[in-house]
Order: sequence, then C-alpha cells, then structure tokens
Amino acid sequence: MTAHPTPSPSEVIASGADLLADAVAAQAVPVTRVDWRPPMPGTEADLATVAGDPRRRDANARAVEAVLGVTAHLVDVVPAADALDLQRGQFLHAGPPIAWERASGPMRGALMGGAALEGLVGDPEDAAALFEAGSGVSLEPCHHRGAVGPMAGVVTPSMWVFVLEDPATGRRTHCTLNEGLGKVLRYGAYSPEVLTRLRWMGEVLGPLLQAAVRSVRDAGGVLDITGILTQMLQMGDEAHNRNRAGTLMLLRDLAPAMVTSAGPAGLDPSDVAEAMRFVGGNDHFFLNLAMPACKLALDAARGIDGSTMVVAMARNGTDFGIQVAGTGDEWFTGPAQLADGLYLGSYGPDDANPDIGDSAITETAGIGGFAMATAPAIVRFVGGSVPDALATTRRMHEITLGENPRWTVPVLEFQGVPTGIDVTRVCRTGILPQINTGMAGKQAGVGQVGAGLVTPPAEIFPKALARLAELAGGR
Amino acid sequence: MTAHPTPSPSEVIASGADLLADAVAAQAVPVTRVDWRPPMPGTEADLATVAGDPRRRDANARAVEAVLGVTAHLVDVVPAADALDLQRGQFLHAGPPIAWERASGPMRGALMGGAALEGLVGDPEDAAALFEAGSGVSLEPCHHRGAVGPMAGVVTPSMWVFVLEDPATGRRTHCTLNEGLGKVLRYGAYSPEVLTRLRWMGEVLGPLLQAAVRSVRDAGGVLDITGILTQMLQMGDEAHNRNRAGTLMLLRDLAPAMVTSAGPAGLDPSDVAEAMRFVGGNDHFFLNLAMPACKLALDAARGIDGSTMVVAMARNGTDFGIQVAGTGDEWFTGPAQLADGLYLGSYGPDDANPDIGDSAITETAGIGGFAMATAPAIVRFVGGSVPDALATTRRMHEITLGENPRWTVPVLEFQGVPTGIDVTRVCRTGILPQINTGMAGKQAGVGQVGAGLVTPPAEIFPKALARLAELAGGR
Repeated sequence: MTAHPTPSPSEVIASGADLLADAVAAQAVPVTRVDWRPPMPGTEADLATVAGDPRRRDANARAVEAVLGVTAHLVDVVPAADALDLQRGQFLHAGPPIAWERASGPMRGALMGGAALEGLVGDPEDAAALFEAGSGVSLEPCHHRGAVGPMAGVVTPSMWVFVLEDPATGRRTHCTLNEGLGKVLRYGAYSPEVLTRLRWMGEVLGPLLQAAVRSVRDAGGVLDITGILTQMLQMGDEAHNRNRAGTLMLLRDLAPAMVTSAGPAGLDPSDVAEAMRFVGGNDHFFLNLAMPACKLALDAARGIDGSTMVVAMARNGTDFGIQVAGTGDEWFTGPAQLADGLYLGSYGPDDANPDIGDSAITETAGIGGFAMATAPAIVRFVGGSVPDALATTRRMHEITLGENPRWTVPVLEFQGVPTGIDVTRVCRTGILPQINTGMAGKQAGVGQVGAGLVTPPAEIFPKALARLAELAGGR
Repeated sequence: MTAHPTPSPSEVIASGADLLADAVAAQAVPVTRVDWRPPMPGTEADLATVAGDPRRRDANARAVEAVLGVTAHLVDVVPAADALDLQRGQFLHAGPPIAWERASGPMRGALMGGAALEGLVGDPEDAAALFEAGSGVSLEPCHHRGAVGPMAGVVTPSMWVFVLEDPATGRRTHCTLNEGLGKVLRYGAYSPEVLTRLRWMGEVLGPLLQAAVRSVRDAGGVLDITGILTQMLQMGDEAHNRNRAGTLMLLRDLAPAMVTSAGPAGLDPSDVAEAMRFVGGNDHFFLNLAMPACKLALDAARGIDGSTMVVAMARNGTDFGIQVAGTGDEWFTGPAQLADGLYLGSYGPDDANPDIGDSAITETAGIGGFAMATAPAIVRFVGGSVPDALATTRRMHEITLGENPRWTVPVLEFQGVPTGIDVTRVCRTGILPQINTGMAGKQAGVGQVGAGLVTPPAEIFPKALARLAELAGGR
C-alpha cells in the first residue's frame, strides 16, 4: 500500500490490496492502478492473434449488447416431457456431456433416483445396472435442450419445469422446480423422502404453479424474472446461493393467483397453503428461475463469430466446461475443482464431490460470485470475509467486457455487475472467474454437505483461446 | 486525510472523512481516530454532574440489557376500540401532546379524515369546526396508550391495530395497519379514495389478518417480528423507509393461514387475493410492525433512574419530543425540522411540512437512519450518497451506548447496529441522531410529497440533560 502523505492528494498510485485504492477513489481522488499479473503460460502467441482479429471488438460489443437486451418472463410451468420433448428413458444432466462410467457419486445418485421416479426401476439401487448396461436409457446435457439444472441437474420426463421466454424473440429456456436443501435429488440423494417430495411436486406444486402462471398471463400480467433479479441485487441476494428476496418476490407475485386458480384446477385451500409453505420455506426456490433467466440472456450471444465472450460455464461433477460465443457449441473442459467453504453438520472436505451443476450460468451472466459485493451476508453460508466479497466483485470487472445497467450493486455506488467473461482477459491476467456454489456429498445418496467458493480449472481458458486463435486464422 | 507513506504501515492516524480510516481499519491496521467535536454550548456543568452520577453506568447497562432482551411477537389484530380502549371521539396522534390550534396541516388533515371515518361528520371538511370547538373530541399521543403511529399517526376506534407482545413479560404495543404511500390518511390526505381504502381495511383486511394471526397462534406457531427485523437487516432494509424484505417475509408467514382461515372467517378467495395484493403491493406495510416492535423493546428501559438513554423520539409535525429512561414520562420538545431529501413529482421544499410521526422510534432502537449502512439502496428514496449512508451508521455509534448482537450490518462485517442513544454523548459530541423519514405535504389533504433526512432540534438534548442533572442532585 502506498499513498501520498499530503492531506489532500491530487493523485494516488496504489498497488496490491484494492481497499485503499477503492476508498480513495470513492473520495473522488484520481487513482492509477498498477496492479499487474503475467498472462497464463503459453498464451502469448494466441493472445496476440486474437487481439489482432479485426472482428473481435465489434463482435464482443454485439455479444454484450445481445445479452443485456434480453428480458426473461415466466410464461408457463409444464412437465419436461412436453416442454423439452423428453422421452421415457431420456435423462438430462448438468454440465458438459458425460457417460455413466465417468459420472461422479452425486450425478449417479440423482440419475438413480430419477430412474425410480420414472418407474424404470422399483428401487433406485437397481438403476445402476440399467445405466451400466445403457439399455433404454440415454444421457444428454441440459444445455443441449434449452435447459439448465442446478447441481446434478437431472431432468426426467415427469418433472415439471419453469418456461421462461424473451418476449422480443420468443426464445425460451427451462429449469425444474427447486426441491429445497439437504437430502434432495439434485445433490445426489434418492431416499424415499426425496422421491415422495418429487411426486408431490409433480402432482400438486407443478399443476398449481401452472394454473397460477397461466392465470396471471391470461389476465395480461407479466412475471418479470429479470425485474425480480434487478430488485434482488438491492436486497442482499446474489442469486446463486442467496435467493431469499427473489423467492419472496416470486411468492408475492404468484400468491393471489394461486388462491383464485386453485379451485378451478381441482386443488384445495390446504394444497395452496402447503405449496405456499413449501416455496416460502425454501430460500433457494428462486435459483431455478435465476438460472434459466441467465441462460436466456447468454444464449443471445451464442454463435457470434469473433466474440471471445463466455456464454456458458457448467460442471457435471467430473468435468468443468465452458462454451464461448465465437466457437459455436464446442465445450472446453478440464477437471472440476473442489470448493473451499463451510460444511454442514459433521461433514468435512473428505466428504465433498468436485464442483457440479449448471448454476455457474449465474456467474457467467454477472451475478452469483460476481455480485458477492451486494450480498455480504453470504459469507456466512459459503465462507470468506466481507472485504473478500467486495474485492471479488471488483476483481471480476477486470475479466469482463461490460457492466449491466439494470443489475447494480448499491454498496458499490450502484455500479453495474461485471458482465461477459472475456477469454482473452482471463488468459491475459490469470484471474479466474469466482463461483460460489453448493457442495454435494461425493457418495451417491448423501445429499448436500456444504457450500463454498470455487473457480474453473485454469487450463480451459487457454484451450478456448487456442480455438479462437485458430478460427481467427492464426494457427 | 493523512497517512504514513510506508508500504505496510503499522499505525495510521486519521481525522476528517471516515472512509480512509475505515478502509485502513478493514485491512487490520490499527487506527487512532482523532475526530473531536466540542460539546453543545452551555452543557459543560450538566455533563460534569451527570458524569458524576454514581447510578449512571449501571443504569445505562441495565437499560441497554432491558432493550436487547425484548422479543416482539405478533399475537393479534383487533380494532383499536378494543385493544386501546379508545372511545368514540377520542383520537390518538403521533408525537408529543399537541392541541388542534398548534397542529400542522397533515395532522389536521388526518384528524379530519379520521372524524369522517368514525361518522362524526359526513364531510371531512366539516370536522375542522368540531376540533376547533373541542366538543366531544379529544387528542392524546399514541405513546400514552402503548401505541405508535407513522406520520400523523391518527388512530380512531374503528381502525384495526396489530398487537405485539413480549412473551417474557406479556407487555404489549400496538400500531395501525399501513395504508400504502401517496394519498393516505397518515400523510394528511382525506379524499374519498382514502376513506374507501380505510373502510376496506376495516371490513376485509383487518378481519382476515386477525383470522390468520389467530390461526397461526392456535397452531402453536410464532410470528416473530424481532426475528424478521434481524433478517431484514441482511436484506437491504433499514426498517424505517425500506421495509421491502420485511413486508415479503410477513406475507410469507401469513399467506398459508390467510388461505385456510378465510372461509371460516366468512371471506372469499377473492378477498384473500385482494388482501395479498394489497400487502404485497405496499413495500412499507411492515413499517407498522417494525415500529411497535421497537417501542416494545424501548419501553423496557422506561423509568430506570439514572439512565441517560433515550426511550422515544417522536414528532407531531409541530414539535419534536424525546423521552429519556431516567426522567419518567416527561417530554423534552423543540421545533420539528424540515427534512432534506427527494420530492415526488413536481413537489418541492415549499410544499413540505416539518418532520412528523412516531416512526423515529426505529432510530431510537438502532435501525432506520442508524442502520442506513445496511440499506444503501435507500439513498435513491431519501437522498444522500452511499458513502454517506455507511458513514452515518458509523457516526451513530459515537452517540449510542451499545450494539445489538441480533441486528447486524453485513457490510460492516456484521457489526451490531448502534443502540441506545445517550443524551450525554449527544451533548458531549454535538452529533445529532440521524433520522430518515417520509415528508408530508404541509397543506391538509395533500398527502406525501417526498422522503428525506432530518435530525431532532439540537436544544432538546441539553434540556433533557439539565433534567437528568437536576435529578442527580446537581441543580
């Protein structure tokens, strides 16, 4: 830390920890940051090639503009069979493609529970043989069907999904309904209580939410998920591991319609009350709306040639993969990392599975770990300190292409969240995207063991850069 | 701003703006603050006397402990006639005692509307003569009947009130149901729409909330208002002018019981839906629970001889009054000030009435303006800057006796809110309590014109100090 000793400095030069520089900057003193990190090893030539790509600047500007132009409305709730044309025996999962052989414990546990839910087996334990044989079952990433799934992200035909739509284009994305925390399918648990809850969600919660959403829509109302996200960021949520305010706003927006549409949908007041208790009792319920809203925004930038912007970060519990606007649907993958964080009960680091889930789509869109400054209370859930949380959001601005004028951070004087991870900036600075995440038990059937902080494996960014350089004609 | 120019200072001496000192402190560097202000003029002798009162230290410790020991549960919703033994023609109002002759425009407007609501007159405009004559009508502060009222704070017998109870002692406080913003009675408006809304609140909302609260209570549930306040402070609410998360949590906690108890209470699903829309559509609804929760806590410190802690700050639109733990029920009053803030529509400073309402009970309890650091988004409603909001909470620690371990501010690394305004510290430093508040139009009938920041008139603290010195035997 270095500062002029004058009472009213006209200029301050600061390096190292950001906090002094930030404080000085907040007092309107010009600050020159001399923070410098070397580029990732071996990326110099590709960085030069991509930097020289004449399409890059305009392509990235268009990519950011496309993402920021999207609004996500909740327009329906339907079974995945209908929304995603998912057939019996077809399973969607989180992250890049993976086969049963390489699948982690929680991914296997969720698939086994899903097989039992669909009646492919009577006992989830019997499903392992089914997946080993590969007879009548198939696995496919959620991202390949316009969906995202938290943690294991397993979607089966009978699960109900939220349908989000961008009104300007009609494009849609989807996500299942959130089950809560602890022993739940997406964390790899498949005990009878897990399946009983999923059946209730299919028989009562899904149909009731469908009736309510359709009732709002038919009355000319709008369920503006992007707008709720805007408000959440003013209310201490970062929309990945804190979705408290978001969940409450969703309940506020749906509750009156749940009351008036239950009867016509054949449901009782006791069903409505139970559904309200379920939604209101699960602070993470809104995560399954935040995620598809982020995917809907990011999908707008897919396929923009020359753009170096990341459009998806996703983990299947074994591999961490990214997709980039300028490289089509190709995945760049490396080993999923272990999160560093806080554990539930008596669980510890030895119990945790590597990073898993499509939920890093939130960070890809500028929230989650990228917006931790607006949710300092989250350090009690994922670990770290409040100054770390503030510093993380500032650091993410160094690897992103823009700021989101709708999604702002009050404590940073309403600065927009850092938006659009730039592969070249990541490679040039060595700064990795910061993700905060839940941690699944590594044994199938365990469920959640904690929550923490994690990054992608560094090597996937040079891989993506190399492909961008090749497409730019430099390899 | 002065700082050692060394790269790793072992000590920093800072004066003036807090931000640099705070940033350095956050980096774990020892900081010596040399900020010093002279005491308020003429208070030196009384300060010496009160400082020498042997009861003071223990009395203040007991006062803080008493306040922090209170938990507020919502236990009922009933008409004020029943809860407060309020008779026809009796009107409660905000602030210290005042007669019609000295009442401000918004206070008069609210009383006129209240008279029409009670059927004392057909047209609110006819009520002025009634109050001038004083025939069959009487005015009394809410605080004198175990109640608090926001803005004009007018309570009439037919209005329904929340009943809050401290389970450890059975003590109770009360507050009306919040009407929303804009043209509402508490801001002095009394048009037909205002009275129509109040009648619906009496006929539908009050009875429905009563049924729901009793249903929760009868099932062994607890509606923990203190607990909701704890959560709100983690969600960007300061519980005076931001009650968004609090309102949503109340709705979450009551919604299921509203659904199941409506039928037995003779209400339709459409009534339930309308009530949910009303509560969910009014971000300030929870204010009327935050206020009596704060009064319930502070009332625990009333009458502690020797304590210099403020137990109430309240304004009637003409006078600002405080009550102090060690001086019984005496009010120390001075002229209410004009707030500095943001105006609605085309309104400006000339349209605003001086400070009004019992809502400063929130600041008295350590939230509201005292907790602005946790609610930086509020500067878009009440004015000021984000650094100001952070600095305000830090400054209030200089005039308070303790911190609240339950009500913490995440961005200040979970420091407890500054609790227990100390008359001696206010006089010694000249730092006045910071209140953020709504602004009523000064003409009866107008309603809200804005929101802003305000302080008490400085002279009331030396007045209270003089009385404390007298009681300590020094005068």
